[in-house]
Amino acid sequence: MTTRTTFLGTGAMGSALATAALGAGRPTVVWNRTPGRAGILGERGAIVADTVEEAVAGDGVIVACLFDHRSVRDVLDPVAARLSGRAVINLTTTTPNQGRELAAWAAERGITYLDGAIMAVPQMIGGPGSVIFYSGAAAAFGEHRPLLNLWGECSYLGTDAGMAALYDMAMLVGMYTMFAGFMQGAAMVGVEGVPAAEFAARATPFLAAMTGGLAHYAAAIDAKDYAGEGQQSLEFTEVAVASLMQATIDQGVSVEVLKPVHDLVRRQIAAGFGTQGTARMFEELRSSR
Amino acid sequence: MTTRTTFLGTGAMGSALATAALGAGRPTVVWNRTPGRAGILGERGAIVADTVEEAVAGDGVIVACLFDHRSVRDVLDPVAARLSGRAVINLTTTTPNQGRELAAWAAERGITYLDGAIMAVPQMIGGPGSVIFYSGAAAAFGEHRPLLNLWGECSYLGTDAGMAALYDMAMLVGMYTMFAGFMQGAAMVGVEGVPAAEFAARATPFLAAMTGGLAHYAAAIDAKDYAGEGQQSLEFTEVAVASLMQATIDQGVSVEVLKPVHDLVRRQIAAGFGTQGTARMFEELRSSR
Repeated sequence: MTTRTTFLGTGAMGSALATAALGAGRPTVVWNRTPGRAGILGERGAIVADTVEEAVAGDGVIVACLFDHRSVRDVLDPVAARLSGRAVINLTTTTPNQGRELAAWAAERGITYLDGAIMAVPQMIGGPGSVIFYSGAAAAFGEHRPLLNLWGECSYLGTDAGMAALYDMAMLVGMYTMFAGFMQGAAMVGVEGVPAAEFAARATPFLAAMTGGLAHYAAAIDAKDYAGEGQQSLEFTEVAVASLMQATIDQGVSVEVLKPVHDLVRRQIAAGFGTQGTARMFEELRSSR
Repeated sequence: MTTRTTFLGTGAMGSALATAALGAGRPTVVWNRTPGRAGILGERGAIVADTVEEAVAGDGVIVACLFDHRSVRDVLDPVAARLSGRAVINLTTTTPNQGRELAAWAAERGITYLDGAIMAVPQMIGGPGSVIFYSGAAAAFGEHRPLLNLWGECSYLGTDAGMAALYDMAMLVGMYTMFAGFMQGAAMVGVEGVPAAEFAARATPFLAAMTGGLAHYAAAIDAKDYAGEGQQSLEFTEVAVASLMQATIDQGVSVEVLKPVHDLVRRQIAAGFGTQGTARMFEELRSSR
């Protein structure tokens, strides 16, 4: 039997991954709990398996892109014996600890486990800007690199299977909070009749430019030097954020997205650090351990 | 007397504005409550006024860049009679309502009022990427355009003096929430010994790229179409954000920055919109009015 690549899960992301494999002419098997997009992939040349057992027949690599961590175990547990000596590349969204748990589960069963975290939306797979982090089995990362390269730029973050997910999630926290902050802003100007699209046209380049400030915060954090030149003080930031809070209230919009930022800044000031740099918010966040 | 440009307030931003005027060879007067950076501007050719009265002598335009809204009234009230028939360009950070209040105050005294909101840090003034929003007196915006152009790209947002500040603040909400989200992420990977600078090197291009998604959210918001194709459902987002919450807790880092995002998504799902698009968070934020 020709070595096949098996894709478990054909949601939007799983379909995008399988489509890239098909596009490269790889023998491709797809399975999904419900028919869903599997049929479309079948029309594009994939073998559509009716069962997981059928999907994992042969000796090829298994790519899992399922709903969540639990789905991965639910789907793989019954066929674990068939996977021994083979590689599973798990691109399902998991927490770092869940990735580590799956790596341990795989190790006990002689399965090579590579955890991947996709920093892109399905439409971006295989195109510019698609970045995927991997961690876990270094050998699997090396061996399957031609497959991985079809999906996007690959970054290997070490043998700890949890690192890809950890990096992914740490970056997604920034993304989701930015999205929520954008929506609060859109609501604020929306009250005055400004369309969200007009606001987005101005906010998009601004926020993209402001990501340039993150390296400065990072330098202060790594040096633990929050008193150095050129840092915006917590007191200055407090005045600014208090104004944003008031403006939000004046517009009749919920302050809940912004309020934690104000709280963090105020607690650091209350702790006596008002004249130090705003990057000190970092200390407030990590001190909860 | 040669027409002079008066700068009230020589903090980091006020100094940057005055420096640009001096660089263009404009007769420049500076005043600050405390000596501060005024001396340095004096060495560069500015007239350093000891009092506000002295600073506003003559008939030139007044540029205010003070600590806050209250400082503007405190500084301008005693010399208001001297300002009648002249223009005040206020670049102090104010809320939209504070900008409107100052516009009304100015109108009562025959002062032309232009409100400005600077979307840049002091180091960027006069350089690429510096954007300044203006609203209020259209005539002042037109007449003083050569001065305004020295500082950055100018956008005039209409006669409502509050609009510049409103736009500014709506955009800053996105910026501060993104910064806080970045710091939470840096704390998450920091627990594993990853330097913040290494995290920033990956997170910066990622977050900049993700701003490209804002236009899609905006289109759904403007169309009030949260059921259209290609939108990430609230249920999908809930699973993702719940994973981020768990990973944050697992790392011993505070979830407070991310928690409101999770709450917004969960409330929209509870309201029966789980299968609709994530942009629906917007409705949850504005519904507080």
